[in-house]
Amino acid sequence: MVLPNFEENLQKYAKLLVSKGINVQKGHTIVITVDVEQAPFARLLTKEAYALGAEEVIVKWTDDFVTRETYLHTSEERMTNIPQYKVDESLDMIEKKASRLSVRSADPDALNGVDGKKLSAVQKANNVAFDAQRTATQANKVSWTVAAAAGAKWAAKVFPDLATEEEQVDALWNEIFKTCRVYEADPVAAWDAHEARLLSKADVLNAEQFDTLHYTASNGTDLTIGMPANHVWESAGSVNAQNEKFIANMPTEEVFSAPDFRRIDGVVKSTKPLSYAGNIIDGMTFRFENGQVTEVTAEKGEDTIRRLVEENDGGRSLGEVALVPDPSPISQSGIVFFNTLFDENASNHLALGSAYASSVVGGTEMTQEELAAAGLNRSTTHVDFMIGSADMNIDGIRKDGSIMPIFRNGDWAF
Amino acid sequence: MVLPNFEENLQKYAKLLVSKGINVQKGHTIVITVDVEQAPFARLLTKEAYALGAEEVIVKWTDDFVTRETYLHTSEERMTNIPQYKVDESLDMIEKKASRLSVRSADPDALNGVDGKKLSAVQKANNVAFDAQRTATQANKVSWTVAAAAGAKWAAKVFPDLATEEEQVDALWNEIFKTCRVYEADPVAAWDAHEARLLSKADVLNAEQFDTLHYTASNGTDLTIGMPANHVWESAGSVNAQNEKFIANMPTEEVFSAPDFRRIDGVVKSTKPLSYAGNIIDGMTFRFENGQVTEVTAEKGEDTIRRLVEENDGGRSLGEVALVPDPSPISQSGIVFFNTLFDENASNHLALGSAYASSVVGGTEMTQEELAAAGLNRSTTHVDFMIGSADMNIDGIRKDGSIMPIFRNGDWAF
Repeated sequence: MVLPNFEENLQKYAKLLVSKGINVQKGHTIVITVDVEQAPFARLLTKEAYALGAEEVIVKWTDDFVTRETYLHTSEERMTNIPQYKVDESLDMIEKKASRLSVRSADPDALNGVDGKKLSAVQKANNVAFDAQRTATQANKVSWTVAAAAGAKWAAKVFPDLATEEEQVDALWNEIFKTCRVYEADPVAAWDAHEARLLSKADVLNAEQFDTLHYTASNGTDLTIGMPANHVWESAGSVNAQNEKFIANMPTEEVFSAPDFRRIDGVVKSTKPLSYAGNIIDGMTFRFENGQVTEVTAEKGEDTIRRLVEENDGGRSLGEVALVPDPSPISQSGIVFFNTLFDENASNHLALGSAYASSVVGGTEMTQEELAAAGLNRSTTHVDFMIGSADMNIDGIRKDGSIMPIFRNGDWAF
Repeated sequence: MVLPNFEENLQKYAKLLVSKGINVQKGHTIVITVDVEQAPFARLLTKEAYALGAEEVIVKWTDDFVTRETYLHTSEERMTNIPQYKVDESLDMIEKKASRLSVRSADPDALNGVDGKKLSAVQKANNVAFDAQRTATQANKVSWTVAAAAGAKWAAKVFPDLATEEEQVDALWNEIFKTCRVYEADPVAAWDAHEARLLSKADVLNAEQFDTLHYTASNGTDLTIGMPANHVWESAGSVNAQNEKFIANMPTEEVFSAPDFRRIDGVVKSTKPLSYAGNIIDGMTFRFENGQVTEVTAEKGEDTIRRLVEENDGGRSLGEVALVPDPSPISQSGIVFFNTLFDENASNHLALGSAYASSVVGGTEMTQEELAAAGLNRSTTHVDFMIGSADMNIDGIRKDGSIMPIFRNGDWAF
């Protein structure tokens, strides 16, 4: 296929991300993280952000090749020794209430062959160094959006059967435009309607305040997840500390909250591959007891997932529970994207690691200790993995023991 | 034209810059500044630097469009308020003795239409903030190389008569490869021979220790420049504080030293356009009295050159005097490159602003005060401008008043 009106749609997409995604307002500081291969798109984003009155647009360029070479040749000591000036920069950005737009286009295999122990150590060092930034983001102190652009190597991984790089890239852009509603005459209006639909589901769940969720599926998943008191189910639309709306993920199909990290028991199996730190992990089985992973296996990348669980403070429990119907457009496309932003929106998922502070009432004003006491997992990591399937059932169990079906056969039951 | 063996020559060029240019040694830290449009070349440089044992290669990406948008939309207050963490980063790089490879490919007109006052203020703020870095570089505390890559808009400016962007870019790469001796079977050996030739000229000048240089040309240039005691003429090869050799400019054809900033008198006219801060300045005339510019005019960009002279501490005097024969390959190409790296190597030139500490014996170990006392101009700026022509004569005048011709009709006279 050759994508018609590509330039026009790319511009619509750029406008959508800055206006509806991070919701640029006059005087805002914007940090855009983007691959050098996406320079034409980065320029559109920059132009549109300034057009909306941004005071400063800071583009942080990345490159898979340079990153990989660094992992291969730079010592672990140098890589884990994060210079203070980088931390200071992230603190300055928090102080300036900078919005963060992260455009993901990386090759899922970019770091294949890099020593797993080194990867994990560097990831952890960065998580610790930039803890304040992640905490600010997760507590919605600032606006943030994770979105995608069609990198050539990523596109080749998703569409290996297409003949040319151009076709592969076009096919991936087509999926990005489709799932982000760029083809709609008015993408912003389409997102408003989408937000309202998701919000209606979240409203029901928030009113019910289930004590426990019970997941079952034919693959052997049988998991109960306790929910914290006063938990909040959220969806597409978020609001930052300055009372400005933003959309954290584009695309998004999920309604999500946080589990009580002390009350998770049973077995859960992953149903889609997970691309983590440049490696693919697939066929995972987790056993939980009293909220902690007591056993983890994987058909592929077991070493990597084991390290993630064992070496990160808080990596043994869950920080997010998210509901995505199997008939969602991304799921129905049947495409495995090898990219969490898409794959998590094709499937019910959970996240190892930290919870979003907004997942309990008043959470964004709580201290770390108060959040933990409320049942929200604290961690230096947050990694989603997919567990949904077409035959998954989820029950909501009330404090009085009565049951309300939430999902039947992979779709909303109410 | 279509450039034959482009990939092969690009790789030879990358190897040349890291091995002969910044001379990467095991354990070195390397900072490469390069445009996102040059990503394939940046990857070759990164790969070759790691292959030579670099401990860390840090790529600082730039983009003309983003820079221009920032100048157009971000307030002068924000832009001149350089965050301390950026300064700290540059200090950390000095501490790590990081080599700096700057790959220039910018559109000479990139900042056309940006308010000149703002440009000048931002430039000055950066000069002040990164003073330690510039001082370390100019004193050869670390290895540094300025080189070029064929940016599309730059190529269009140099070769406006070629029909397509591809032809323009190929033609510019061809000039870069030619002038950097990349087409030689062994570019490193060719550079060694070139270094030796230039050094033989510098040796004669160093032995003579002229008291004054006297420049005349038919365009009205009539300038006398006093030289400091114990001045040093240098050429292609430099040596850093770790006793490692490097080449500061590639290409280079010049033999250069510093004037005594208190003893410059007369009139000098520019003979090529100067691309400064994204603007073209042309047809400049400077009048000097007792080392200071007392009058400056220009046929184009007078405003910009006037600001440079008036608003920068030390911008009213000269910090460099450089000799380049008119028959040099770059001059003979007849091409105006609108890029100082090339145009200064086509022509005798001078620089407004700071002198290189290495231009007097023992200078790299002197304090700023000692350098000034020795006659070396101290400044937060350093901007070359071209004064050479085919009929320029230069006399060397000894302390006893006797005269030795240095240049006759634009070429070496000895």
